[in-house]
Amino acid sequence: MPGVMELLPMDQAAFQEMLDVIRRGFESYGFLPIATPTMELAELLLRKTGGETERQVYLAQSSGAADQGEEPELALRFDLTVPLARYVAEHRNELTFPFRRYQMQPVFRGERPQQGRFREFYQCDIDVVGQDSLSLRYDAEIPAVINTVFANLGIGEFTIGISNRRLLAGLMTGLGLESDDAMMRELDKLSRRGPDEVVASLRQRGASETSAQRLVELAGRGVVTGEAASALLAELETTSGAGLAQGIGEVREVLSLLAQLGVPSHRFGLDLGIARGLDYYTGTVYETTLVAHPELGSICSGGRYDDLAGHYTDRRLPGVGISIGLSRLFWQLRAAGILPAPKSPVTALVALLDDEGLEAALQIAADLRTSGINTESSLEPRKLAQQLKYADRSGIEVVVVAGPEERAKGEVLVRDLSRQSQEFVARSDVAEAVSRMRSV
Amino acid sequence: MPGVMELLPMDQAAFQEMLDVIRRGFESYGFLPIATPTMELAELLLRKTGGETERQVYLAQSSGAADQGEEPELALRFDLTVPLARYVAEHRNELTFPFRRYQMQPVFRGERPQQGRFREFYQCDIDVVGQDSLSLRYDAEIPAVINTVFANLGIGEFTIGISNRRLLAGLMTGLGLESDDAMMRELDKLSRRGPDEVVASLRQRGASETSAQRLVELAGRGVVTGEAASALLAELETTSGAGLAQGIGEVREVLSLLAQLGVPSHRFGLDLGIARGLDYYTGTVYETTLVAHPELGSICSGGRYDDLAGHYTDRRLPGVGISIGLSRLFWQLRAAGILPAPKSPVTALVALLDDEGLEAALQIAADLRTSGINTESSLEPRKLAQQLKYADRSGIEVVVVAGPEERAKGEVLVRDLSRQSQEFVARSDVAEAVSRMRSV
Repeated sequence: MPGVMELLPMDQAAFQEMLDVIRRGFESYGFLPIATPTMELAELLLRKTGGETERQVYLAQSSGAADQGEEPELALRFDLTVPLARYVAEHRNELTFPFRRYQMQPVFRGERPQQGRFREFYQCDIDVVGQDSLSLRYDAEIPAVINTVFANLGIGEFTIGISNRRLLAGLMTGLGLESDDAMMRELDKLSRRGPDEVVASLRQRGASETSAQRLVELAGRGVVTGEAASALLAELETTSGAGLAQGIGEVREVLSLLAQLGVPSHRFGLDLGIARGLDYYTGTVYETTLVAHPELGSICSGGRYDDLAGHYTDRRLPGVGISIGLSRLFWQLRAAGILPAPKSPVTALVALLDDEGLEAALQIAADLRTSGINTESSLEPRKLAQQLKYADRSGIEVVVVAGPEERAKGEVLVRDLSRQSQEFVARSDVAEAVSRMRSV
Repeated sequence: MPGVMELLPMDQAAFQEMLDVIRRGFESYGFLPIATPTMELAELLLRKTGGETERQVYLAQSSGAADQGEEPELALRFDLTVPLARYVAEHRNELTFPFRRYQMQPVFRGERPQQGRFREFYQCDIDVVGQDSLSLRYDAEIPAVINTVFANLGIGEFTIGISNRRLLAGLMTGLGLESDDAMMRELDKLSRRGPDEVVASLRQRGASETSAQRLVELAGRGVVTGEAASALLAELETTSGAGLAQGIGEVREVLSLLAQLGVPSHRFGLDLGIARGLDYYTGTVYETTLVAHPELGSICSGGRYDDLAGHYTDRRLPGVGISIGLSRLFWQLRAAGILPAPKSPVTALVALLDDEGLEAALQIAADLRTSGINTESSLEPRKLAQQLKYADRSGIEVVVVAGPEERAKGEVLVRDLSRQSQEFVARSDVAEAVSRMRSV
């Protein structure tokens, strides 16, 4: 089917391993899991969306609905933010605030299928949601989590770019420009369209040549880290614009806390080119890029918002969050050859050479499993060469053989496929021998 | 929304833990993961289903479909077997046979919501699929996996009942009865309707009183284990019916292999009351029940089938598999009070008493995470009593405090909430101290 990413088992295992690493990273910072239903009432899910999202939503109906009387219209979730808003509003009295949740589920969009753009794709989100207020300090914790997650994914060096909508709006005002969402979206296009085109469209929106050039020059510097970021913030302070000083102060505190949280200084910095087009964001905004693969664009984005669930509750729920679009990232990493070779979750194959050896083989397999070694057991006898070839192609590291000769001696042959070595061990030592090979 | 199971974070963590235990059990036997799309072409998904399933399927359409020209109709998967059939047929040349896969995903049915019956629920399936043929030995491996999984879930003792459609058909023929699917379904109703009602309906279908009584008596014995199972099989051999001897031989081999696979003898046995109504099954059939909670019915069912994907490919693909309906099981276990108290995935809370202590608190939290301890860090100062209460309610075991006095001495207070004990340790020893408390 076009528009979906269906994987062969070894790739699926690699994808799951990425999900696991992300989950462990989220949990290491004390985030708790939630999962929301795939389908929600369409009326609820679409309450806050504009035209674009609405066009791409999947609507669903039970084929038996006509027999069952009136059924409300259902829609499949198209992100994890709207379901989070509904969840927090619905369970508000049972949750503790600040509410720190992670959520890793597929979302659905009826987009025209393209390379690497899927109609069903995993999002891996974290958010911290406060009640009435939420400390700016959480704006620093979010990229610290992302640093842990991407470091553990082992997909190469990355940079977390941080900006601030309040700072950007103040800067625009200070330069005599409009500071509305349309301007933010223009700025956001810089990396795709280049400076000349963005300067031209800023000019069309009434900016002076000097101001447009200045804004585009600042936004084009990329991620500015360490001392240079402090210098850039000091430079910005010479401009005056409504909210600019507050925005600068916020960025300064976030950068300072990130250092205290132990995030290496080359991994994060100020990037005035990050504006995030959505009017949803009100303060800090983030984008993350791979250093060796800037062409992949942002692999993880998010920011601070003033009110999560205004459509569902009167209580103000400010928050900050970030999202990894994992299906797309996985697809891109694989296409770019960055993914490590998939490893089988199966460590050992117990070969079977003759039917008389079945009982011994089954018991060896049971022993290995008891020792925590994932083990496939051949249940039909085949030539050893065939079974070795099967293990090799399947990424299984160790093959254990108890043929007639080995059984007569009370021994087992343990063969390490990756190192092309083998040894005979006593039957009782087989689990220990396999563990040893695996850990080398 | 009615008909969905939406959990609070701690329950969600417990649900995920069950998914993890099941996955590790599947992988320990060398099964590999696949995942199929939530939506498939309705034409493909419904190719083999009869009326009942078809009525309960969710059909989906993108809200933008009208703008994008003709879109084929989509349906949400209602089980994992039909998608497996489509997957194996589609990727046949890229898979190795016997193909051993596990799949753990939600499925969707537009049923009228009832207690513990959900419209979206997780199924956890394993299947071994052969090409042209598949050894009976795999019929024994499947319940061995289930034994490992349920033992590791720690939800009390259970029994895996095994029967065989060929044996049952032979037995019915031998008793002068019809042996069609309708008869199998009658037999399957025994535990719900009781012997009298089933005898009466067998009589209506033309069975003699003696034959009906005999069949119902045999089917009503429940799970017969160990030596008694061998005796029962020997007793059945005195009857003659087409296929009976083959069925008896198959059951005998499966029971014998299960013992060789190390499954304790009280955990499995022959249960002639298991017929599985579906005409899909052709040989071995399974049901699993909790010893202390027979009222929950079968918590895991499956069996052997002759051809998985006849609707998608000409190649014959015999297989054997089993399915755990986890959402329903989780709901039932929770309602019956069998689930262990949910444990938070978060081990430690680093409390914050004063803003001056923020940097120290962040660094302690970073140290704990580096040592593999899932740690939440309080980012806003509050009274210690409040933070202790929060940790206690959240199931966090250890609270770490570096208030002004502790910082002045280079110390940290580490408090074990479950044992109501605490100690002061040097700042550099905090990770070691928390690890020690956790492992007690």
